[in-house]
Amino acid sequence: MGVAGGGPGSFIGPVHRAAARLDGCYELVAGVVSSDPDRARAAGESLGFAPDRRYGDVQEMLQAEAAREDGIDVLAIMTPNDTHVPYGLLALERGLDVICDKPMARTVEEASELHRGVDASGLVFCLTHVYAGYPLVRQAREMVAAGDLGTVRLVEATYVQGGNAREDSDPTSPRSVWRKDPDRAGRSLVLGDIGSHAHHLIRFVTGLEVAEICADVGTAVPTRTFDDAAGALLRMSNGARGILWATQAAAGVENSLRLRVSGTAGTLEWDQETPMHLDFKPLDGARQMRTPNGPDATPLAKHSSRIVAGHPGGFIEAFANLYRDAAEAIAVRRAGGDPSDILEHLPDATDGLRGMEFIEAALRSSDAHGAWVRCTA
Amino acid sequence: MGVAGGGPGSFIGPVHRAAARLDGCYELVAGVVSSDPDRARAAGESLGFAPDRRYGDVQEMLQAEAAREDGIDVLAIMTPNDTHVPYGLLALERGLDVICDKPMARTVEEASELHRGVDASGLVFCLTHVYAGYPLVRQAREMVAAGDLGTVRLVEATYVQGGNAREDSDPTSPRSVWRKDPDRAGRSLVLGDIGSHAHHLIRFVTGLEVAEICADVGTAVPTRTFDDAAGALLRMSNGARGILWATQAAAGVENSLRLRVSGTAGTLEWDQETPMHLDFKPLDGARQMRTPNGPDATPLAKHSSRIVAGHPGGFIEAFANLYRDAAEAIAVRRAGGDPSDILEHLPDATDGLRGMEFIEAALRSSDAHGAWVRCTA
Amino acid sequence: MGVAGGGPGSFIGPVHRAAARLDGCYELVAGVVSSDPDRARAAGESLGFAPDRRYGDVQEMLQAEAAREDGIDVLAIMTPNDTHVPYGLLALERGLDVICDKPMARTVEEASELHRGVDASGLVFCLTHVYAGYPLVRQAREMVAAGDLGTVRLVEATYVQGGNAREDSDPTSPRSVWRKDPDRAGRSLVLGDIGSHAHHLIRFVTGLEVAEICADVGTAVPTRTFDDAAGALLRMSNGARGILWATQAAAGVENSLRLRVSGTAGTLEWDQETPMHLDFKPLDGARQMRTPNGPDATPLAKHSSRIVAGHPGGFIEAFANLYRDAAEAIAVRRAGGDPSDILEHLPDATDGLRGMEFIEAALRSSDAHGAWVRCTA
Amino acid sequence: MGVAGGGPGSFIGPVHRAAARLDGCYELVAGVVSSDPDRARAAGESLGFAPDRRYGDVQEMLQAEAAREDGIDVLAIMTPNDTHVPYGLLALERGLDVICDKPMARTVEEASELHRGVDASGLVFCLTHVYAGYPLVRQAREMVAAGDLGTVRLVEATYVQGGNAREDSDPTSPRSVWRKDPDRAGRSLVLGDIGSHAHHLIRFVTGLEVAEICADVGTAVPTRTFDDAAGALLRMSNGARGILWATQAAAGVENSLRLRVSGTAGTLEWDQETPMHLDFKPLDGARQMRTPNGPDATPLAKHSSRIVAGHPGGFIEAFANLYRDAAEAIAVRRAGGDPSDILEHLPDATDGLRGMEFIEAALRSSDAHGAWVRCTA
Repeated sequence: MGVAGGGPGSFIGPVHRAAARLDGCYELVAGVVSSDPDRARAAGESLGFAPDRRYGDVQEMLQAEAAREDGIDVLAIMTPNDTHVPYGLLALERGLDVICDKPMARTVEEASELHRGVDASGLVFCLTHVYAGYPLVRQAREMVAAGDLGTVRLVEATYVQGGNAREDSDPTSPRSVWRKDPDRAGRSLVLGDIGSHAHHLIRFVTGLEVAEICADVGTAVPTRTFDDAAGALLRMSNGARGILWATQAAAGVENSLRLRVSGTAGTLEWDQETPMHLDFKPLDGARQMRTPNGPDATPLAKHSSRIVAGHPGGFIEAFANLYRDAAEAIAVRRAGGDPSDILEHLPDATDGLRGMEFIEAALRSSDAHGAWVRCTA
Repeated sequence: MGVAGGGPGSFIGPVHRAAARLDGCYELVAGVVSSDPDRARAAGESLGFAPDRRYGDVQEMLQAEAAREDGIDVLAIMTPNDTHVPYGLLALERGLDVICDKPMARTVEEASELHRGVDASGLVFCLTHVYAGYPLVRQAREMVAAGDLGTVRLVEATYVQGGNAREDSDPTSPRSVWRKDPDRAGRSLVLGDIGSHAHHLIRFVTGLEVAEICADVGTAVPTRTFDDAAGALLRMSNGARGILWATQAAAGVENSLRLRVSGTAGTLEWDQETPMHLDFKPLDGARQMRTPNGPDATPLAKHSSRIVAGHPGGFIEAFANLYRDAAEAIAVRRAGGDPSDILEHLPDATDGLRGMEFIEAALRSSDAHGAWVRCTA
Repeated sequence: MGVAGGGPGSFIGPVHRAAARLDGCYELVAGVVSSDPDRARAAGESLGFAPDRRYGDVQEMLQAEAAREDGIDVLAIMTPNDTHVPYGLLALERGLDVICDKPMARTVEEASELHRGVDASGLVFCLTHVYAGYPLVRQAREMVAAGDLGTVRLVEATYVQGGNAREDSDPTSPRSVWRKDPDRAGRSLVLGDIGSHAHHLIRFVTGLEVAEICADVGTAVPTRTFDDAAGALLRMSNGARGILWATQAAAGVENSLRLRVSGTAGTLEWDQETPMHLDFKPLDGARQMRTPNGPDATPLAKHSSRIVAGHPGGFIEAFANLYRDAAEAIAVRRAGGDPSDILEHLPDATDGLRGMEFIEAALRSSDAHGAWVRCTA
Repeated sequence: MGVAGGGPGSFIGPVHRAAARLDGCYELVAGVVSSDPDRARAAGESLGFAPDRRYGDVQEMLQAEAAREDGIDVLAIMTPNDTHVPYGLLALERGLDVICDKPMARTVEEASELHRGVDASGLVFCLTHVYAGYPLVRQAREMVAAGDLGTVRLVEATYVQGGNAREDSDPTSPRSVWRKDPDRAGRSLVLGDIGSHAHHLIRFVTGLEVAEICADVGTAVPTRTFDDAAGALLRMSNGARGILWATQAAAGVENSLRLRVSGTAGTLEWDQETPMHLDFKPLDGARQMRTPNGPDATPLAKHSSRIVAGHPGGFIEAFANLYRDAAEAIAVRRAGGDPSDILEHLPDATDGLRGMEFIEAALRSSDAHGAWVRCTA
């Protein structure tokens, strides 16, 4: 496997690499971890790449690796958002399977292009919506699919962070400069960064699409030029109602992502800060706390837990579940089999496209002072 | 004290009476607990009223009691919503202080009438927004007022219940028939019942008004004629952004009311299902868990706790705090003093009016497909 | 009802009075709230006693009240430990039912005397082991009795407070002077104050006796003369094993009382700081969170909840459950009926005697350097 | 790195391997994962070992690897307890650094032998007391060392599982047969399996030794021949008092390990089921919730967290912290440096020896009916 991005100072780079290593499914041998040749060399060395596999440019890497017998066959992309689509397309063209950070693109147009590229390639494309890798999120999805909630009626997702609460926070972290630049990150920082996670989580667990939204996207910290708070009223594809709230301006909050889904037969609640509990409140009978690998664990949730019940895991394990599933799907595909039962729960280019459609719809609604807007054309 | 309402089968009647008794500030001696004379007699007996003080009609009670030397001087109203205003006005006209259940009225017009009546009377009028009686909600208010959060930027209130989740729940509880009748309960059940609490909680803690909203009010359970789910995007009077979500259709959920308020200097979180913790996440420094009567308790919060730290209390104690505060304010007023420092934190007719304005604004916005609407003319 | 004790500055006096008032079962009309006539008058007035019912001595009060047609018929005792037995016996001799704070006495000998007195009297004697009044503690007892846990094998009770953590705390609170005096409080402060609660809780929930113990009782704060930490290994009457840990020297801890009971079929866990959840972990099947008045509530637990599920209550409501049950038992007895089904779950003189036997056994074991000692002769 | 043990069906084998891989510090190339040649081959293949590095015997592996230029230089031991000492000694004799599962041995005598061997070798020996790898456990240790608690007075550790609750559980899991055999596992299963963790956790956080204990070790499930419940009263090396409770017979409980340490200046509480919170209750000031990488994180705790605050981790990351620290210490040592600042917090052979002394002392005390016994000669 080769990587694009994730150099020194990156938050997500080390997570990708730890996730790739955790289950031993990938060998990380090459990468472009800086466009500066000296820094690329230094960082490549610290990552254990052979000297001739520390590249300064993705195209160069793909070309050089293609020429090697032991060249990389998977590319993991963790660069700023504006390069996801071009790098993804380059890799697909070379026949590499791709693992790509979210959001997939800056615009629906870009996302559609990559989506078509993936479709045409027949290759595996995994978008790292990490929350879809948590065992109990997967269990929630399986419980909804099995009808444990009956018909879904209500969804509520809130994703609240404090990373952009400080008025003067902007210049402190040079690694994040690109995030504050809409040309590189996309038009909405808060929706791209975390709103897209909340949106995917709702879709992943319920199996429903967000059909229409009425949104308000803006800045809580008045002095800044990028958005940091977004609220949306939702209408799901089956008519269910819901709400989504995302902000990065909540001073002191670390990473509070919560989901509540109610159906005719019960409610499920999950909070990523206590990811080892899935609260199931049935319409009839006592409230239950489901645990990974615990009683009544569902098949995919079981498969996604590495240890016996009671031993906590978290973000890296969830991330690694995506990497492992992608590896399994790639192996099946290469062996000529049909990986669709794995791909079914692996976030992909369609999810990335839906995410961009959601963001653009939210912005359209907000621009139109709360008009209800359809998410997917 | 006399009571109107709260007869057999009532949920809130016993709470009012227990709250009135808890601190020994009131003697409950008369009441109209049924319009049926036989049932009024039976229920009045069980409540310990003398035979001649078990009335069948509020006007009759007020008249008869006015003729007694030991006649009641406070009326507690816990009847269906459509009678709050007429009973409140009748009591005020007789010079009685009034404690009244929420929502205060069915419409802004009604609420304004009562609001004017209270203003003109100079009497104490307490609206039982019980969550304003919880020690840590009061502490949150005091912390915001003291500047512990800096300038408020974000508010998030969710109030989720399951009481109306069952499709066939409507006819099961005869005591609730009036709730499903907009002529008696007001046009929005979910906003009157619980949305008004969330709205008041936001205002009480932040000291801000909801200036504008963009709302969606409707039914999650498709077969019914009254609403059970409402979402709203908020703009506060100081420009802060927020969200409010209220539903009674979340199967299996008991009574999940949560508040999060973020300012430039930190975030406060409170969840009524664990009311003994106020989570304070400062912008700088470690997260804190404040407790009633615990370290750094604020004055009103201390005054609102009856026991040393670590001994839980809840709904009834909070309700009783309103009753006790009202009793203190009444005593000060009758002694010719100025109770304004007590009234400052006691939910009153202005809160009731703001609540009705909020509900009507939400409905207007929802009817206008998400148009932003001002809450207060 | 009359009261002995609970004057100004008392922690438990206001709790008793609030508990007595909450359900309207008692009328508090007389009391000895100070041995100083002036203070007794002042405090009696603030409690609303008529001038001639503000007494300076219990015997005087009982005599005077006996001479009145409307004299008190119940005595609630909340004085220091050394007076529980004499006041209790005096009241019983006059034919009064008694509600008495814990621990019941200073010694087994004293406790036996009162126990015999209660037996001989046929009157109701309620010992306010408040935790036995919590709805979910009662539910735990009912679940164990119903066999939901199978055969009990393990018990674990920890009661940790910080009230005596401060080395110089002793002289700060004049109202607690008697607690530090073994002649007045009994030989073990930590076991009398809180160990006795943990011991009763184990017995109340499991229905088993502590048969033998191996204990260590002493001081964590080296400079003091009274004990503040006690640990004990337990063998229950059915052979189950267990542990009990009580300390008041844990700096910063408010009131952490936790119980865990395991049987062949599952485990129950309850924590008084979150009293609205009873955690049920069955041997087979998903973990459950039971709530007061929630799904699968047991009869007595239901009866002990005043509000619909989801509305928290706590210490005062639990205390009031004891008062209400005592009132019901008294009413049944006076009506010539048999209140034994109520008394079955009401802490009484036998519980008080068992508590003293436990404390003395713990001290004997500790004095004998950990020898196993039988609790009941 | 080579491995001994952890073959198919092992619980801890996959954890060791994931921990070794997570940070990329080790390359796992050889192993004895079964004594049966066919199974060793199959399992070795699934772990990616070259065909000639899938061994059937540890001695054979060490010899063969010593002959290779690329031979292993670290041995990770995850075999049954009876082989820890011989395999450890063999590896040390060959000059390999060792990572070994706990408990280190079956007896004090065995443990002493290995302890001497490690001392003599000058090599790194890491005992995988995983809880010492959790960021917040490390933070607790650093806070105690920094004096945040003042002088430690009280310790409380409870470790409760349900894995051996089922009466007929014994034969169901073939991989655990050796655990029930005292000749292979050591005389106390419950103390070796989990009591040793609780004991190490107390020592690791407080920096104190358990000086004396008074214990009760036995079976909660009457029909079995191995122990499953142990309680102990503790006296620490500085005179602090404490309690330790360990059982594997608590039906339905997953993995409840809790620590509470109180000193003159405050209390720390940690629960491994919610490992992302360290509860700090100072004697003065508000209760705090510390988080990994959150505000006021201590240096080693920060170093032990891989992600920004708010992103949960758990058992595997903690395990990997031990592996990473061992790798760093090994690198420093090989480079001729002094790794003592790393080794200071890495569980080692001295910890293993203290653990065995604790277990034997507990058994001696229990055999002597609760006599107080010194832990270390």
